[in-house]
Amino acid sequence: MKILVTNDDGIRSKGLRELVKALSAVGSVSVVAPDQERSGMGHAVTMHRPLRAVEISGIAGAVQAFQLDGTPADCVKLAVEVLLEQRPDLVVSGVNAGPNLGTDVLYSGTVSAAVEGIIMGIPAIAVSIADHSEGWLGLDRAVELAARIAQAIWEKGLPEDTLLNVNLPLLPAEEMKGIKVTRVGIRRYRDFVEQRQDPWGRPYYWLTGEAVDLDEGPDSDTRAVKDGWISITPIRFQLTHEEFRDELARWNIE
Amino acid sequence: MKILVTNDDGIRSKGLRELVKALSAVGSVSVVAPDQERSGMGHAVTMHRPLRAVEISGIAGAVQAFQLDGTPADCVKLAVEVLLEQRPDLVVSGVNAGPNLGTDVLYSGTVSAAVEGIIMGIPAIAVSIADHSEGWLGLDRAVELAARIAQAIWEKGLPEDTLLNVNLPLLPAEEMKGIKVTRVGIRRYRDFVEQRQDPWGRPYYWLTGEAVDLDEGPDSDTRAVKDGWISITPIRFQLTHEEFRDELARWNIE
Repeated sequence: MKILVTNDDGIRSKGLRELVKALSAVGSVSVVAPDQERSGMGHAVTMHRPLRAVEISGIAGAVQAFQLDGTPADCVKLAVEVLLEQRPDLVVSGVNAGPNLGTDVLYSGTVSAAVEGIIMGIPAIAVSIADHSEGWLGLDRAVELAARIAQAIWEKGLPEDTLLNVNLPLLPAEEMKGIKVTRVGIRRYRDFVEQRQDPWGRPYYWLTGEAVDLDEGPDSDTRAVKDGWISITPIRFQLTHEEFRDELARWNIE
Repeated sequence: MKILVTNDDGIRSKGLRELVKALSAVGSVSVVAPDQERSGMGHAVTMHRPLRAVEISGIAGAVQAFQLDGTPADCVKLAVEVLLEQRPDLVVSGVNAGPNLGTDVLYSGTVSAAVEGIIMGIPAIAVSIADHSEGWLGLDRAVELAARIAQAIWEKGLPEDTLLNVNLPLLPAEEMKGIKVTRVGIRRYRDFVEQRQDPWGRPYYWLTGEAVDLDEGPDSDTRAVKDGWISITPIRFQLTHEEFRDELARWNIE
Protein backbone atom coordinates (compact mmCIF):
# COMPACT_ATOMS: atom_id res chain seq x y z
CA MET A 1 0.00 0.00 0.00
CA LYS A 2 1.40 3.41 -1.04
CA ILE A 3 0.42 6.12 1.42
CA LEU A 4 0.68 9.90 1.02
CA VAL A 5 0.89 11.78 4.31
CA THR A 6 0.18 15.49 4.59
CA ASN A 7 -1.17 17.93 7.19
CA ASP A 8 -1.91 21.60 7.80
CA ASP A 9 0.41 22.20 10.77
CA GLY A 10 3.50 22.00 8.55
CA ILE A 11 6.09 19.37 7.83
CA ARG A 12 7.98 19.89 11.07
CA SER A 13 4.95 18.97 13.21
CA LYS A 14 5.40 16.10 15.65
CA GLY A 15 1.92 14.91 14.73
CA LEU A 16 3.01 14.29 11.14
CA ARG A 17 6.33 12.71 12.08
CA GLU A 18 4.76 10.19 14.44
CA LEU A 19 2.05 9.42 11.90
CA VAL A 20 4.65 8.66 9.24
CA LYS A 21 6.47 6.28 11.59
CA ALA A 22 3.31 4.39 12.48
CA LEU A 23 2.06 4.14 8.88
CA SER A 24 5.41 2.87 7.62
CA ALA A 25 4.56 -0.40 9.39
CA VAL A 26 1.61 -0.95 7.03
CA GLY A 27 2.74 0.71 3.79
CA SER A 28 5.29 2.69 1.81
CA VAL A 29 4.93 6.27 3.02
CA SER A 30 5.64 9.49 1.12
CA VAL A 31 5.20 12.97 2.54
CA VAL A 32 4.22 16.22 0.83
CA ALA A 33 3.35 18.82 3.45
CA PRO A 34 3.26 22.60 3.87
CA ASP A 35 6.48 24.35 4.86
CA GLN A 36 4.61 26.20 7.61
CA GLU A 37 1.31 26.15 9.45
CA ARG A 38 -1.67 26.51 7.09
CA SER A 39 -4.62 25.90 9.37
CA GLY A 40 -8.05 27.38 8.72
CA MET A 41 -7.34 27.23 5.01
CA GLY A 42 -10.54 25.39 4.13
CA HIS A 43 -10.26 24.05 0.62
CA ALA A 44 -7.98 26.81 -0.63
CA VAL A 45 -5.79 26.23 -3.68
CA THR A 46 -2.97 28.46 -4.93
CA MET A 47 -3.50 29.66 -8.48
CA HIS A 48 -2.10 33.18 -8.59
CA ARG A 49 1.50 32.50 -7.78
CA PRO A 50 3.76 29.55 -8.61
CA LEU A 51 4.54 26.88 -6.04
CA ARG A 52 7.95 25.63 -4.92
CA ALA A 53 8.63 22.11 -3.67
CA VAL A 54 11.83 21.19 -1.84
CA GLU A 55 12.80 17.55 -1.27
CA ILE A 56 13.90 16.96 2.29
CA SER A 57 15.34 14.09 4.26
CA GLY A 58 15.29 13.04 7.88
CA ILE A 59 11.65 12.01 8.26
CA ALA A 60 11.88 8.57 9.83
CA GLY A 61 9.84 6.00 7.90
CA ALA A 62 9.29 8.11 4.78
CA VAL A 63 10.63 6.88 1.44
CA GLN A 64 10.30 10.40 -0.06
CA ALA A 65 9.40 13.78 1.43
CA PHE A 66 8.77 17.28 0.08
CA GLN A 67 7.86 20.55 1.70
CA LEU A 68 5.69 22.89 -0.32
CA ASP A 69 4.94 26.60 0.05
CA GLY A 70 1.24 25.96 -0.44
CA THR A 71 -1.97 24.78 1.17
CA PRO A 72 -2.85 21.22 2.21
CA ALA A 73 -4.98 20.83 -0.95
CA ASP A 74 -2.03 22.05 -3.06
CA CYS A 75 0.15 19.39 -1.43
CA VAL A 76 -2.17 16.57 -2.47
CA LYS A 77 -2.57 17.91 -6.02
CA LEU A 78 1.17 18.31 -6.61
CA ALA A 79 2.06 15.05 -4.90
CA VAL A 80 -0.23 13.02 -7.13
CA GLU A 81 0.38 14.87 -10.38
CA VAL A 82 4.07 15.70 -10.24
CA LEU A 83 6.12 14.90 -7.18
CA LEU A 84 5.54 11.22 -6.36
CA GLU A 85 6.80 8.46 -8.58
CA GLN A 86 3.72 6.33 -7.98
CA ARG A 87 0.10 7.26 -7.41
CA PRO A 88 -0.83 6.78 -3.73
CA ASP A 89 -3.50 4.27 -2.73
CA LEU A 90 -4.43 6.32 0.34
CA VAL A 91 -4.10 9.90 1.60
CA VAL A 92 -3.70 10.38 5.37
CA SER A 93 -3.83 13.92 6.75
CA GLY A 94 -2.67 14.80 10.26
CA VAL A 95 -2.23 14.27 13.08
CA ASN A 96 -3.70 17.69 13.75
CA ALA A 97 -3.16 19.34 17.13
CA GLY A 98 -6.77 20.33 17.78
CA PRO A 99 -10.14 18.77 16.94
CA ASN A 100 -11.92 18.98 13.57
CA LEU A 101 -15.54 18.37 14.44
CA GLY A 102 -19.00 19.42 13.32
CA THR A 103 -19.33 22.39 10.96
CA ASP A 104 -15.63 23.14 11.54
CA VAL A 105 -14.67 20.47 9.02
CA LEU A 106 -15.53 23.06 6.33
CA TYR A 107 -12.75 25.35 7.63
CA SER A 108 -10.25 22.60 8.30
CA GLY A 109 -7.05 22.36 6.29
CA THR A 110 -6.55 18.87 7.71
CA VAL A 111 -9.88 17.67 6.35
CA SER A 112 -9.47 19.59 3.07
CA ALA A 113 -6.36 17.57 2.22
CA ALA A 114 -8.47 14.43 2.61
CA VAL A 115 -11.20 16.02 0.47
CA GLU A 116 -8.65 16.69 -2.26
CA GLY A 117 -7.74 13.00 -2.06
CA ILE A 118 -11.30 11.91 -2.79
CA ILE A 119 -11.70 14.54 -5.51
CA MET A 120 -8.71 12.84 -7.15
CA GLY A 121 -10.29 9.42 -6.64
CA ILE A 122 -8.06 8.34 -3.74
CA PRO A 123 -9.56 7.21 -0.41
CA ALA A 124 -8.52 9.38 2.51
CA ILE A 125 -8.35 9.72 6.28
CA ALA A 126 -8.08 12.88 8.39
CA VAL A 127 -6.80 12.40 11.97
CA SER A 128 -7.02 14.97 14.77
CA ILE A 129 -6.53 14.97 18.52
CA ALA A 130 -8.39 17.33 20.83
CA ASP A 131 -5.16 18.52 22.49
CA HIS A 132 -4.41 22.01 21.10
CA SER A 133 -1.26 22.36 23.21
CA GLU A 134 2.17 20.98 22.44
CA GLY A 135 1.48 18.21 24.94
CA TRP A 136 0.20 15.84 22.21
CA LEU A 137 -2.03 13.95 24.63
CA GLY A 138 -3.46 10.99 22.74
CA LEU A 139 -0.98 11.12 19.84
CA ASP A 140 0.32 7.57 20.34
CA ARG A 141 -3.21 6.20 20.26
CA ALA A 142 -4.05 8.35 17.22
CA VAL A 143 -1.19 7.13 15.04
CA GLU A 144 -1.64 3.51 16.04
CA LEU A 145 -5.33 3.80 15.16
CA ALA A 146 -4.52 5.52 11.86
CA ALA A 147 -2.36 2.56 10.88
CA ARG A 148 -5.13 0.12 11.69
CA ILE A 149 -7.72 2.13 9.78
CA ALA A 150 -5.36 2.37 6.79
CA GLN A 151 -4.99 -1.41 6.87
CA ALA A 152 -8.77 -1.87 7.09
CA ILE A 153 -9.35 0.45 4.12
CA TRP A 154 -6.71 -1.47 2.15
CA GLU A 155 -8.56 -4.73 2.84
CA LYS A 156 -12.19 -3.60 2.60
CA GLY A 157 -12.14 -0.38 0.55
CA LEU A 158 -14.15 2.77 1.14
CA PRO A 159 -17.24 3.75 -0.88
CA GLU A 160 -16.50 6.17 -3.70
CA ASP A 161 -15.93 9.82 -2.77
CA THR A 162 -15.79 9.02 0.93
CA LEU A 163 -13.23 9.97 3.57
CA LEU A 164 -12.99 9.06 7.24
CA ASN A 165 -12.65 11.90 9.76
CA VAL A 166 -11.07 10.62 12.97
CA ASN A 167 -11.00 12.65 16.20
CA LEU A 168 -9.61 11.59 19.58
CA PRO A 169 -10.73 13.06 22.91
CA LEU A 170 -8.56 15.02 25.34
CA LEU A 171 -7.76 12.04 27.55
CA PRO A 172 -4.89 9.67 28.23
CA ALA A 173 -5.23 6.68 25.86
CA GLU A 174 -6.28 4.29 28.63
CA GLU A 175 -9.20 6.53 29.63
CA MET A 176 -10.68 6.77 26.11
CA LYS A 177 -13.98 4.92 25.84
CA GLY A 178 -13.43 3.21 22.50
CA ILE A 179 -14.59 3.99 18.98
CA LYS A 180 -17.93 5.44 17.94
CA VAL A 181 -19.02 5.81 14.30
CA THR A 182 -20.64 9.24 14.24
CA ARG A 183 -22.23 11.84 12.01
CA VAL A 184 -21.14 15.45 11.53
CA GLY A 185 -22.64 17.64 14.25
CA ILE A 186 -23.60 21.28 13.93
CA ARG A 187 -21.04 23.59 15.53
CA ARG A 188 -21.46 27.34 15.74
CA TYR A 189 -19.45 30.05 17.48
CA ARG A 190 -20.50 32.62 20.06
CA ASP A 191 -18.81 36.04 20.31
CA PHE A 192 -16.33 34.97 17.72
CA VAL A 193 -14.96 38.35 16.70
CA GLU A 194 -12.77 40.16 19.21
CA GLN A 195 -12.27 43.85 18.56
CA ARG A 196 -9.08 45.54 19.79
CA GLN A 197 -7.41 48.89 19.31
CA ASP A 198 -3.90 49.35 17.99
CA PRO A 199 -1.52 51.81 19.74
CA TRP A 200 -2.90 54.56 17.46
CA GLY A 201 -6.52 53.97 18.43
CA ARG A 202 -7.58 52.20 15.25
CA PRO A 203 -9.64 49.01 15.48
CA TYR A 204 -8.53 45.57 14.39
CA TYR A 205 -10.25 42.20 14.72
CA TRP A 206 -9.38 38.64 15.72
CA LEU A 207 -11.57 35.76 14.64
CA THR A 208 -11.99 33.66 17.76
CA GLY A 209 -14.90 32.52 19.91
CA GLU A 210 -16.40 29.79 21.94
CA ALA A 211 -17.77 26.69 20.18
CA VAL A 212 -21.49 26.12 20.66
CA ASP A 213 -22.67 22.71 19.55
CA LEU A 214 -26.26 22.84 18.37
CA ASP A 215 -26.56 19.18 17.49
CA GLU A 216 -25.83 17.23 20.62
CA GLY A 217 -27.43 13.96 19.59
CA PRO A 218 -25.54 10.93 20.90
CA ASP A 219 -24.44 10.10 17.35
CA SER A 220 -22.80 13.46 16.66
CA ASP A 221 -19.03 13.71 16.45
CA THR A 222 -19.01 16.74 18.77
CA ARG A 223 -20.93 14.91 21.52
CA ALA A 224 -18.99 11.67 21.15
CA VAL A 225 -15.60 13.34 21.64
CA LYS A 226 -16.89 15.37 24.60
CA ASP A 227 -18.06 12.12 26.18
CA GLY A 228 -14.60 10.57 25.83
CA TRP A 229 -15.15 8.49 22.71
CA ILE A 230 -12.92 8.28 19.66
CA SER A 231 -15.09 9.53 16.79
CA ILE A 232 -14.90 8.21 13.23
CA THR A 233 -17.20 9.94 10.74
CA PRO A 234 -17.64 8.86 7.12
CA ILE A 235 -17.83 12.11 5.11
CA ARG A 236 -18.80 12.77 1.53
CA PHE A 237 -19.90 15.96 -0.18
CA GLN A 238 -23.45 15.72 -1.41
CA LEU A 239 -24.01 19.28 -2.48
CA THR A 240 -27.26 19.34 -4.41
CA HIS A 241 -30.44 19.90 -2.38
CA GLU A 242 -32.39 17.39 -4.51
CA GLU A 243 -35.71 17.62 -2.64
CA PHE A 244 -35.85 21.38 -3.18
CA ARG A 245 -35.07 21.30 -6.92
CA ASP A 246 -38.65 20.74 -8.05
CA GLU A 247 -40.04 23.45 -5.82
CA LEU A 248 -37.39 25.90 -7.03
CA ALA A 249 -38.30 25.14 -10.64
CA ARG A 250 -41.88 26.12 -9.82
CA TRP A 251 -40.76 29.56 -8.65
CA ASN A 252 -40.69 30.55 -12.31
CA ILE A 253 -38.12 33.26 -11.81
CA GLU A 254 -37.82 33.90 -15.55
CA MET B 1 -34.87 43.53 2.88
CA LYS B 2 -31.31 44.08 4.15
CA ILE B 3 -28.75 42.62 1.76
CA LEU B 4 -25.03 42.03 2.35
CA VAL B 5 -22.97 41.94 -0.86
CA THR B 6 -19.49 40.45 -1.03
CA ASN B 7 -17.27 38.69 -3.58
CA ASP B 8 -13.83 37.18 -4.09
CA ASP B 9 -12.60 39.43 -6.90
CA GLY B 10 -12.21 42.38 -4.54
CA ILE B 11 -14.26 45.47 -3.77
CA ARG B 12 -13.15 47.32 -6.91
CA SER B 13 -14.61 44.68 -9.22
CA LYS B 14 -17.18 45.85 -11.76
CA GLY B 15 -19.16 42.68 -11.06
CA LEU B 16 -19.69 43.75 -7.46
CA ARG B 17 -20.46 47.38 -8.29
CA GLU B 18 -23.14 46.50 -10.84
CA LEU B 19 -24.62 43.92 -8.46
CA VAL B 20 -24.93 46.53 -5.71
CA LYS B 21 -26.71 48.93 -8.06
CA ALA B 22 -29.21 46.31 -9.19
CA LEU B 23 -29.92 44.98 -5.69
CA SER B 24 -30.49 48.48 -4.31
CA ALA B 25 -33.76 48.45 -6.26
CA VAL B 26 -35.09 45.61 -4.07
CA GLY B 27 -33.37 46.20 -0.73
CA SER B 28 -31.00 48.13 1.48
CA VAL B 29 -27.53 47.05 0.40
CA SER B 30 -24.33 46.96 2.48
CA VAL B 31 -20.96 45.81 1.18
CA VAL B 32 -18.10 44.06 2.98
CA ALA B 33 -15.62 42.74 0.42
CA PRO B 34 -11.94 41.83 0.16
CA ASP B 35 -9.45 44.62 -0.59
CA GLN B 36 -7.94 42.49 -3.37
CA GLU B 37 -8.64 39.36 -5.38
CA ARG B 38 -9.04 36.30 -3.16
CA SER B 39 -10.17 33.64 -5.61
CA GLY B 40 -9.49 29.94 -5.09
CA MET B 41 -9.69 30.53 -1.35
CA GLY B 42 -12.22 27.78 -0.72
CA HIS B 43 -13.67 28.21 2.74
CA ALA B 44 -10.54 29.75 4.23
CA VAL B 45 -10.78 31.90 7.37
CA THR B 46 -8.08 34.08 8.86
CA MET B 47 -7.20 33.13 12.41
CA HIS B 48 -3.47 33.71 12.75
CA ARG B 49 -3.31 37.42 12.11
CA PRO B 50 -5.71 40.25 12.93
CA LEU B 51 -8.02 41.70 10.29
CA ARG B 52 -8.42 45.34 9.31
CA ALA B 53 -11.63 46.85 7.96
CA VAL B 54 -11.73 50.26 6.26
CA GLU B 55 -15.02 52.02 5.59
CA ILE B 56 -15.16 53.39 2.07
CA SER B 57 -17.54 55.50 0.04
CA GLY B 58 -18.39 55.83 -3.60
CA ILE B 59 -20.16 52.55 -4.22
CA ALA B 60 -23.39 53.60 -5.92
CA GLY B 61 -26.44 52.10 -4.22
CA ALA B 62 -24.66 50.95 -1.03
CA VAL B 63 -25.75 52.40 2.31
CA GLN B 64 -22.49 51.24 3.94
CA ALA B 65 -19.30 49.66 2.55
CA PHE B 66 -16.10 48.24 4.02
CA GLN B 67 -13.03 46.67 2.48
CA LEU B 68 -11.34 43.96 4.49
CA ASP B 69 -7.87 42.41 4.23
CA GLY B 70 -9.34 38.93 4.49
CA THR B 71 -11.11 36.14 2.67
CA PRO B 72 -14.73 36.12 1.43
CA ALA B 73 -15.74 33.99 4.45
CA ASP B 74 -14.01 36.49 6.77
CA CYS B 75 -16.03 39.30 5.14
CA VAL B 76 -19.35 37.62 5.94
CA LYS B 77 -18.31 36.77 9.51
CA LEU B 78 -17.13 40.29 10.31
CA ALA B 79 -20.03 41.96 8.52
CA VAL B 80 -22.62 40.10 10.54
CA GLU B 81 -20.85 40.14 13.90
CA VAL B 82 -19.23 43.56 14.01
CA LEU B 83 -19.39 45.87 11.01
CA LEU B 84 -23.05 46.14 10.03
CA GLU B 85 -25.58 47.90 12.19
CA GLN B 86 -28.31 45.39 11.32
CA ARG B 87 -28.17 41.69 10.61
CA PRO B 88 -28.67 41.06 6.86
CA ASP B 89 -31.64 39.05 5.60
CA LEU B 90 -29.69 37.81 2.60
CA VAL B 91 -26.06 37.40 1.50
CA VAL B 92 -25.31 37.84 -2.21
CA SER B 93 -21.81 36.99 -3.46
CA GLY B 94 -20.53 38.07 -6.87
CA VAL B 95 -20.80 38.74 -9.67
CA ASN B 96 -17.74 36.56 -10.28
CA ALA B 97 -15.83 36.87 -13.56
CA GLY B 98 -15.63 33.15 -14.34
CA PRO B 99 -17.95 30.20 -13.73
CA ASN B 100 -18.31 28.27 -10.46
CA LEU B 101 -19.66 24.90 -11.55
CA GLY B 102 -19.42 21.25 -10.57
CA THR B 103 -16.75 20.18 -8.11
CA ASP B 104 -15.16 23.63 -8.46
CA VAL B 105 -17.69 25.05 -6.02
CA LEU B 106 -15.51 23.54 -3.26
CA TYR B 107 -12.59 25.79 -4.33
CA SER B 108 -14.68 28.86 -4.98
CA GLY B 109 -14.32 31.94 -2.82
CA THR B 110 -17.54 33.27 -4.36
CA VAL B 111 -19.52 30.25 -3.23
CA SER B 112 -17.72 30.07 0.14
CA ALA B 113 -19.05 33.51 1.07
CA ALA B 114 -22.55 32.18 0.45
CA VAL B 115 -21.72 29.07 2.49
CA GLU B 116 -20.65 31.31 5.39
CA GLY B 117 -24.04 33.01 5.08
CA ILE B 118 -25.92 29.76 5.56
CA ILE B 119 -23.57 28.68 8.39
CA MET B 120 -24.67 31.90 10.10
CA GLY B 121 -28.31 31.13 9.37
CA ILE B 122 -28.74 33.67 6.56
CA PRO B 123 -29.99 32.60 3.09
CA ALA B 124 -27.49 33.24 0.34
CA ILE B 125 -26.92 33.49 -3.41
CA ALA B 126 -23.67 33.13 -5.36
CA VAL B 127 -23.66 34.64 -8.87
CA SER B 128 -21.06 33.98 -11.58
CA ILE B 129 -20.76 34.61 -15.30
CA ALA B 130 -18.75 32.37 -17.60
CA ASP B 131 -16.80 35.32 -19.04
CA HIS B 132 -13.30 35.22 -17.49
CA SER B 133 -12.17 38.30 -19.40
CA GLU B 134 -12.80 41.90 -18.51
CA GLY B 135 -15.51 41.96 -21.16
CA TRP B 136 -18.23 41.15 -18.59
CA LEU B 137 -20.44 39.49 -21.20
CA GLY B 138 -23.75 38.67 -19.52
CA LEU B 139 -23.23 40.92 -16.49
CA ASP B 140 -26.38 43.01 -17.07
CA ARG B 141 -28.50 39.87 -17.23
CA ALA B 142 -26.73 38.46 -14.15
CA VAL B 143 -27.41 41.43 -11.89
CA GLU B 144 -30.99 41.82 -13.06
CA LEU B 145 -31.56 38.12 -12.36
CA ALA B 146 -29.86 38.39 -8.95
CA ALA B 147 -32.34 41.11 -7.99
CA ARG B 148 -35.29 38.99 -9.07
CA ILE B 149 -33.98 35.93 -7.19
CA ALA B 150 -33.40 38.07 -4.08
CA GLN B 151 -36.99 39.27 -4.30
CA ALA B 152 -38.26 35.69 -4.74
CA ILE B 153 -36.30 34.49 -1.70
CA TRP B 154 -37.68 37.40 0.31
CA GLU B 155 -41.22 36.35 -0.62
CA LYS B 156 -40.94 32.57 -0.52
CA GLY B 157 -37.90 31.81 1.66
CA LEU B 158 -35.25 29.17 1.11
CA PRO B 159 -35.07 25.87 3.01
CA GLU B 160 -32.71 25.92 5.98
CA ASP B 161 -28.97 25.70 5.24
CA THR B 162 -29.53 26.18 1.50
CA LEU B 163 -27.90 28.57 -0.95
CA LEU B 164 -28.53 29.16 -4.64
CA ASN B 165 -25.56 28.96 -7.01
CA VAL B 166 -26.29 30.92 -10.18
CA ASN B 167 -24.14 30.67 -13.32
CA LEU B 168 -24.66 32.40 -16.66
CA PRO B 169 -23.32 31.13 -19.99
CA LEU B 170 -20.82 32.92 -22.21
CA LEU B 171 -23.42 34.45 -24.49
CA PRO B 172 -25.07 37.79 -25.13
CA ALA B 173 -28.18 38.02 -22.93
CA GLU B 174 -30.60 37.65 -25.85
CA GLU B 175 -29.01 34.34 -26.89
CA MET B 176 -29.28 32.71 -23.46
CA LYS B 177 -31.83 29.90 -23.43
CA GLY B 178 -33.53 30.66 -20.12
CA ILE B 179 -33.21 29.22 -16.65
CA LYS B 180 -32.60 25.60 -15.73
CA VAL B 181 -32.65 24.31 -12.15
CA THR B 182 -29.67 21.96 -12.01
CA ARG B 183 -27.62 19.72 -9.77
CA VAL B 184 -23.88 19.99 -9.07
CA GLY B 185 -21.93 18.15 -11.78
CA ILE B 186 -18.59 16.39 -11.34
CA ARG B 187 -15.71 18.42 -12.72
CA ARG B 188 -12.12 17.18 -12.80
CA TYR B 189 -8.95 18.64 -14.32
CA ARG B 190 -6.55 17.15 -16.81
CA ASP B 191 -2.82 18.05 -16.84
CA PHE B 192 -3.45 20.58 -14.18
CA VAL B 193 0.09 21.14 -12.95
CA GLU B 194 2.47 22.97 -15.26
CA GLN B 195 6.14 22.60 -14.41
CA ARG B 196 8.57 25.37 -15.41
CA GLN B 197 12.17 26.22 -14.67
CA ASP B 198 13.35 29.48 -13.17
CA PRO B 199 16.35 31.32 -14.67
CA TRP B 200 18.62 29.26 -12.34
CA GLY B 201 17.27 25.91 -13.54
CA ARG B 202 15.16 25.15 -10.50
CA PRO B 203 11.59 23.87 -10.97
CA TYR B 204 8.42 25.68 -9.98
CA TYR B 205 4.77 24.78 -10.54
CA TRP B 206 1.57 26.46 -11.65
CA LEU B 207 -1.80 24.94 -10.83
CA THR B 208 -3.78 25.12 -14.06
CA GLY B 209 -5.41 22.62 -16.38
CA GLU B 210 -8.30 21.85 -18.62
CA ALA B 211 -11.70 21.12 -17.09
CA VAL B 212 -13.07 17.65 -17.77
CA ASP B 213 -16.70 17.21 -16.84
CA LEU B 214 -17.43 13.64 -15.87
CA ASP B 215 -21.11 14.12 -15.16
CA GLU B 216 -22.69 15.40 -18.30
CA GLY B 217 -26.28 14.51 -17.52
CA PRO B 218 -28.74 17.09 -18.87
CA ASP B 219 -29.51 18.19 -15.30
CA SER B 220 -25.91 19.00 -14.39
CA ASP B 221 -24.85 22.62 -13.94
CA THR B 222 -21.78 22.07 -16.15
CA ARG B 223 -23.84 20.71 -19.06
CA ALA B 224 -26.58 23.31 -18.74
CA VAL B 225 -24.19 26.28 -18.97
CA LYS B 226 -22.34 24.69 -21.91
CA ASP B 227 -25.68 24.34 -23.67
CA GLY B 228 -26.45 28.03 -23.21
CA TRP B 229 -28.76 27.83 -20.19
CA ILE B 230 -28.64 29.94 -17.05
CA SER B 231 -28.04 27.42 -14.26
CA ILE B 232 -29.47 27.74 -10.75
CA THR B 233 -28.42 25.00 -8.32
CA PRO B 234 -29.75 24.68 -4.77
CA ILE B 235 -26.74 23.68 -2.64
CA ARG B 236 -26.50 22.43 0.90
CA PHE B 237 -23.73 20.60 2.69
CA GLN B 238 -24.81 17.12 3.70
CA LEU B 239 -21.51 15.76 4.90
CA THR B 240 -22.27 12.49 6.66
CA HIS B 241 -22.32 9.36 4.49
CA GLU B 242 -25.29 7.93 6.40
CA GLU B 243 -25.70 4.72 4.39
CA PHE B 244 -22.10 3.72 5.08
CA ARG B 245 -22.21 4.35 8.84
CA ASP B 246 -23.59 0.93 9.75
CA GLU B 247 -21.13 -0.92 7.58
CA LEU B 248 -18.24 1.05 9.01
CA ALA B 249 -19.37 0.20 12.54
CA ARG B 250 -19.17 -3.48 11.58
CA TRP B 251 -15.51 -3.10 10.60
CA ASN B 252 -14.72 -3.42 14.33
CA ILE B 253 -11.50 -1.46 14.06
CA GLU B 254 -10.99 -1.47 17.82
